[in-house]
Amino acid sequence: MSFIYDRVALIGLGLIAGSMALAMREKGLAREIVGHARSSETRETALEIGLVDRVFDTAAEAVKGADLVVLAVPVGAMAAVAEEIAPYLQAGATITDVGSVKQAVVNAVSPYLPEGVHFVPGHPLAGTEHSGPRSGFASLFCNRWWLFTPAEDVDETAITRLETLVQAMGANTERMDAAHHDLVLAVTSHTPHLIAYTMVGVADHLKRVTESEVVQYSAAGFRDFTRIAASDPTMWRDVFLQNKDAVLDILGRFTEELFVLQRAIRMGDGQHLFDYFTRTRAIRRGIIEAGQDTAAPDFGRSQKPGENAKS
Amino acid sequence: MSFIYDRVALIGLGLIAGSMALAMREKGLAREIVGHARSSETRETALEIGLVDRVFDTAAEAVKGADLVVLAVPVGAMAAVAEEIAPYLQAGATITDVGSVKQAVVNAVSPYLPEGVHFVPGHPLAGTEHSGPRSGFASLFCNRWWLFTPAEDVDETAITRLETLVQAMGANTERMDAAHHDLVLAVTSHTPHLIAYTMVGVADHLKRVTESEVVQYSAAGFRDFTRIAASDPTMWRDVFLQNKDAVLDILGRFTEELFVLQRAIRMGDGQHLFDYFTRTRAIRRGIIEAGQDTAAPDFGRSQKPGENAKS
Repeated sequence: MSFIYDRVALIGLGLIAGSMALAMREKGLAREIVGHARSSETRETALEIGLVDRVFDTAAEAVKGADLVVLAVPVGAMAAVAEEIAPYLQAGATITDVGSVKQAVVNAVSPYLPEGVHFVPGHPLAGTEHSGPRSGFASLFCNRWWLFTPAEDVDETAITRLETLVQAMGANTERMDAAHHDLVLAVTSHTPHLIAYTMVGVADHLKRVTESEVVQYSAAGFRDFTRIAASDPTMWRDVFLQNKDAVLDILGRFTEELFVLQRAIRMGDGQHLFDYFTRTRAIRRGIIEAGQDTAAPDFGRSQKPGENAKS
Repeated sequence: MSFIYDRVALIGLGLIAGSMALAMREKGLAREIVGHARSSETRETALEIGLVDRVFDTAAEAVKGADLVVLAVPVGAMAAVAEEIAPYLQAGATITDVGSVKQAVVNAVSPYLPEGVHFVPGHPLAGTEHSGPRSGFASLFCNRWWLFTPAEDVDETAITRLETLVQAMGANTERMDAAHHDLVLAVTSHTPHLIAYTMVGVADHLKRVTESEVVQYSAAGFRDFTRIAASDPTMWRDVFLQNKDAVLDILGRFTEELFVLQRAIRMGDGQHLFDYFTRTRAIRRGIIEAGQDTAAPDFGRSQKPGENAKS
C-alpha cells in the first residue's frame, strides 16, 4: 500500500509516540519515522527497540523535511517546543499534538507557527498507567477515540489525511471545539484522576491504618483507584494547571454532590443512597454497550493476580 | 479427602454465597450444601444451576442440622435473619457472615445467638460489580483476603476449622478486631465506592456535556470509576448506613485533602501537584508487588474492548 505520510517526526518518545510508531510500522503508514526526546537515554532506547529510524539531538533537526510533526510532550512543554521547531517546519507540513488539554495547547503553539503549515490539535483517548519509550504497543489505539480540535480555517485535506492515519491505527475520530473538549475531558478524565490521586493520598496519610493494610486489603475497591493514580506525574501536573477552569468547575460540582451523599449517610437516609446507586449502575451499562469497556467481572483481571504480578 | 463440614447452610444466594458453593463443590469441602434466598426466583435458579443440593422457603428450615451457617445477606438484613434462625441452630454449629461491615453485624447478630453456637464474623475481600446467583464462580476467593473478627472468648477449634475451609477455597486469612476492620475497610473500600458513585453521578447531571459524550469518552479514566459504581445498590446502602462513623471520618479527611489539591491547582502550584502524584505512584507499585493486582497495563483489559463487550 502507499504511505499516508512520507516522513513522520515524533517530538517526545513516550507511551503515546511509541505506540504511534509501532502502529505506523505495523500497518506501513509512513515511509520513515524519525524522532527526538530530551533525554539521551530515551533517544537511545527508541532507536534500539526500533521505534524510530533515526533520532536527533534537537527537535529542530528532527522536524526538517517531515510532512507530519507530532508533539508528544507534556502540555506545559508545548510552547517551548513550538518556538524551537517553527523556523524548521517544511511548507505544507501538518503539525499535530497528543496533549490531554486542547485550548491551552492551541494558545501555546499557534503564535509560533508559520503560514502554510496545517495545525490540527489532537488527543487520543488512550493510554495506560505506564510511561516511557518501552511502554508503547501497536494496538493501543484500537477502538479508542482520537479527538481533533482544528480551527475553522484549517485546510480540510490536511485534517482528513491525519484522520485517515489514526483511523488506520484503529482509532475512531471526532472533531470538536477545543473548549468543549476541555470540559468533556475534565469530566471523563481529569477530575477522576485528581480524585483517585486524592484517595490514594488519604490512605497514605492515615496513622491508624498501616500502609501494609492498605496495600494488602486493596482488592476491595481501592486498587481500582491506584491504577490511574500511578499515571505520569509530569503529564498530570500540566493537565491540571492547563485545564484549571474546567477542572475547578467539575470539582466544585463533585464536592457539592459528595456533601449531599455525606449528609444522607449522616442522617441515615437509605432511600436517597439506594436511588443514587441505582442510577449510577445504569451508566456503567451504557459504557459497556458502547464498547468502551469490558463486561467481564473485575475488568477481566486474572482471578489469581498473584500469578501475573510483575508480568 | 474428608469434608470439612457436613452440611453448610447458605442464607442468601448471591455472588458470594454462590461462589462459596461452587468452590466448596469443586474442592469437595462439604458433604451437603443447602440454602435459602428470599426470592423464589433466586431459589429456583440456585437449584437449577446446582449451587445447592436443596433449597428451603425459610431461613429457619435451612439451618436445621447444619454444622456451618453462612449469613450472606445485606448487612441491614442480618438482625432479622439472626432472630429467625436462632431457635433452630444446631448445638455446636458455627455461624459466620460475609458482610462488609463487622461491628454492626456483631451488634445485630450476637444478642440472638444461643449458648453453644460459635459465632465467627467474616468478610471475604472479594467480589465483582455483578450480583445475583448466576454471578458466582469457584475461583473468586483465590489469593484474596478473608478477614475474621471473632470475639476473644470464641472457641479456637471452631475458628480454625472455618479458616481451613476458606483457605481450601484459595483465600488467605487474617484475624482482627471488628472496629479496626471497619476503619481499614472504610479506607480501602467504602469511601472509594462512595467517591466513585459520586463522580458517576456528577457526570450524569451535567447539562453541557451529554451522556453520550460521557459514555463515549469514558476510556480516559472515568470508566474505572463506573465499574465499582455499578455494584449492588442494596448492599452498598447498608454498608454506608452501618459503617457511618468510619466512613464519615475518612470522607472528612478526603475532602480536606481534595481542597488542598484544588487550591494548588487554583494557585498554579505545580511542584505540590508533582510531588503528590509521585508519592501516590509508589503506592500502586506496592499493591502490585503484594500480588493484589496485575501489573498488566489497563488491568490487562483486552486492547479491543469492543470485541468482548457483553461477553
